[in-house]
Amino acid sequence: MTLAVRYTAARTLVTGPADTRSPGPGEVELAPAYVGICGTDLHIFHGDMDARVAAPAVLGHEMSGRVVRVGPDVEGWQPGDAVTVMPLRWDGTCPACRTGHQHICQKLDFIGIDSPGAMQQRWTVPASTLVRLPESVSLDRAALVEPTAVAVHDVGRAEVRGGERVVVVGGGPVGVLIALVARAEGADVRVVELSAHRRRLAADLGLLAWDPAAADVPELVRQWTGDAGADVAFEVSGAAGGVDTAVDVLGVRGRLCLVAIHPRPREVNLHRFFWRELTLVGARLYDRADFERAVALVAEGTISAERLISRVVPLTEAPAAFEALEAGGDVMKILVDCTDETEGAVA
Amino acid sequence: MTLAVRYTAARTLVTGPADTRSPGPGEVELAPAYVGICGTDLHIFHGDMDARVAAPAVLGHEMSGRVVRVGPDVEGWQPGDAVTVMPLRWDGTCPACRTGHQHICQKLDFIGIDSPGAMQQRWTVPASTLVRLPESVSLDRAALVEPTAVAVHDVGRAEVRGGERVVVVGGGPVGVLIALVARAEGADVRVVELSAHRRRLAADLGLLAWDPAAADVPELVRQWTGDAGADVAFEVSGAAGGVDTAVDVLGVRGRLCLVAIHPRPREVNLHRFFWRELTLVGARLYDRADFERAVALVAEGTISAERLISRVVPLTEAPAAFEALEAGGDVMKILVDCTDETEGAVA
Repeated sequence: MTLAVRYTAARTLVTGPADTRSPGPGEVELAPAYVGICGTDLHIFHGDMDARVAAPAVLGHEMSGRVVRVGPDVEGWQPGDAVTVMPLRWDGTCPACRTGHQHICQKLDFIGIDSPGAMQQRWTVPASTLVRLPESVSLDRAALVEPTAVAVHDVGRAEVRGGERVVVVGGGPVGVLIALVARAEGADVRVVELSAHRRRLAADLGLLAWDPAAADVPELVRQWTGDAGADVAFEVSGAAGGVDTAVDVLGVRGRLCLVAIHPRPREVNLHRFFWRELTLVGARLYDRADFERAVALVAEGTISAERLISRVVPLTEAPAAFEALEAGGDVMKILVDCTDETEGAVA
Repeated sequence: MTLAVRYTAARTLVTGPADTRSPGPGEVELAPAYVGICGTDLHIFHGDMDARVAAPAVLGHEMSGRVVRVGPDVEGWQPGDAVTVMPLRWDGTCPACRTGHQHICQKLDFIGIDSPGAMQQRWTVPASTLVRLPESVSLDRAALVEPTAVAVHDVGRAEVRGGERVVVVGGGPVGVLIALVARAEGADVRVVELSAHRRRLAADLGLLAWDPAAADVPELVRQWTGDAGADVAFEVSGAAGGVDTAVDVLGVRGRLCLVAIHPRPREVNLHRFFWRELTLVGARLYDRADFERAVALVAEGTISAERLISRVVPLTEAPAAFEALEAGGDVMKILVDCTDETEGAVA
């Protein structure tokens, strides 16, 4: 039997049989291998997104796996191919799509939120969402491609250039990935993170990380930059204080890239935006070029994906993993192992 | 006797003799002709900027006039030359200056705020601040060059392109000037303004103006743009509601140019910045290229400066003009006439 984990109500995940079906025209059936649990999945688990998510719902949009069956008219894919999925489906006709911004389509289907996700042993998706993985990339590391694509997109939106000084506010998985991608662009990066565990992990990756509870971060930035301020800040914390820090550290014409989701309006020091001619840039998701670049960064080892994986749990233990993440503590990324041990050849 | 108007304390302007002196090396003595009263002058008059402004202080930074005397080592200027002044003095060594953003120097001397301004009959300034006026431009209209330079800078910061749909929130002098400059760039412009008088004035200039108290502006923008939203919004109102409107009207990847001064933090819908990948761009003052372009726009009549002048008052009536502006009502720009009637040849 192939299994799926479903969100049924706030704080409730239920394991049961997956809904499998033959892939239709243009579709591909996958055997997910590893699925990462991300902040949005946790929001859903909390019940915060019940207005959007139709329970029972299979979650999961950070994944790696292999092709099992290809539908009619699908070309270029064979059973056994290693893939990840760019989990976006756009309508192609809305104003965003018409201006080339399909990834923020006004009627976007985010697969894994708005339609069934990867946390199951069989998953049928449009072939157009597949992104090929080189065989050199292990599938556990490849599950980090999706958040790496987020980071690539964010660094691109902020137009980070070599030699620039960059502050990343929030050192969770996406924050650390942004720091690594910015460093790969030649930037000099500092991470601001409350958790000692996450600061240590950043340090292990060669990133200098500051504790905002113990230090005056804007003052540290002034010392670091000779009073000029940072060129770029990324707000990845989602906290009100994180927004303030990101604004305060920027120098003249600095760019603040807004990555975190702030569901409610936040007080923002607009006077500083005026006075220093700052720019705030919203960044959401990624496009295919970002995804391809993310695959390359993970494949070549620029992104040490394995270092971000705190642990791997079997599919049947996904509910406990959500509870552990909700409780916080010393954790970065948890992967759910969906491989069916009776089918070693596929995984 | 040459006169000056000085701010001495909150709501107090006093007329008295001007401090005149021979221009030193690199300096020029001017006879100001017309000086516009701007919002910042009113803030000073209210006493809101006493921490920055050293009373007694001569205000005024929107001006036109003629050269009276040139100091040693000053080349290229003759008595009688018609000029306006770009009222900025930068230190040249701060991080802003070193990166080419002298206009937002971290130690900027804004002449007319931080040092004596133009509301007097003789005014000595660095020759480097002078901008030549063609003889074809009447000096009353030329007093609008400075706020026009603000508008040119703002439209440039927002990167307005031909065919784009632009919403200007706030239809005072700077808002209307932004609308006119954006229209000159080929944009399709709407103005949002509470005052019926200012909406009529905008309409007289061929601008479509909406009353936000009577209409659902975001809905009007949806209808206007076929649900796409505006490409650019300018926040020129300084009001919390103005920020909300400017955010709400923008479509995917829209740019919000922040022009107004918001002394205190404002609640901002950051989720919309994330969701639609919006950009917020702070804009302050201008550089010399903006000023030169403003002179050209006023000279060629693209900016109908004369239509923005509500009235012209003699220097001795400047205090009453400040009180009238503070009281609000049907007024746009008031000019103070500084010409000394005993010296017709200069004015």
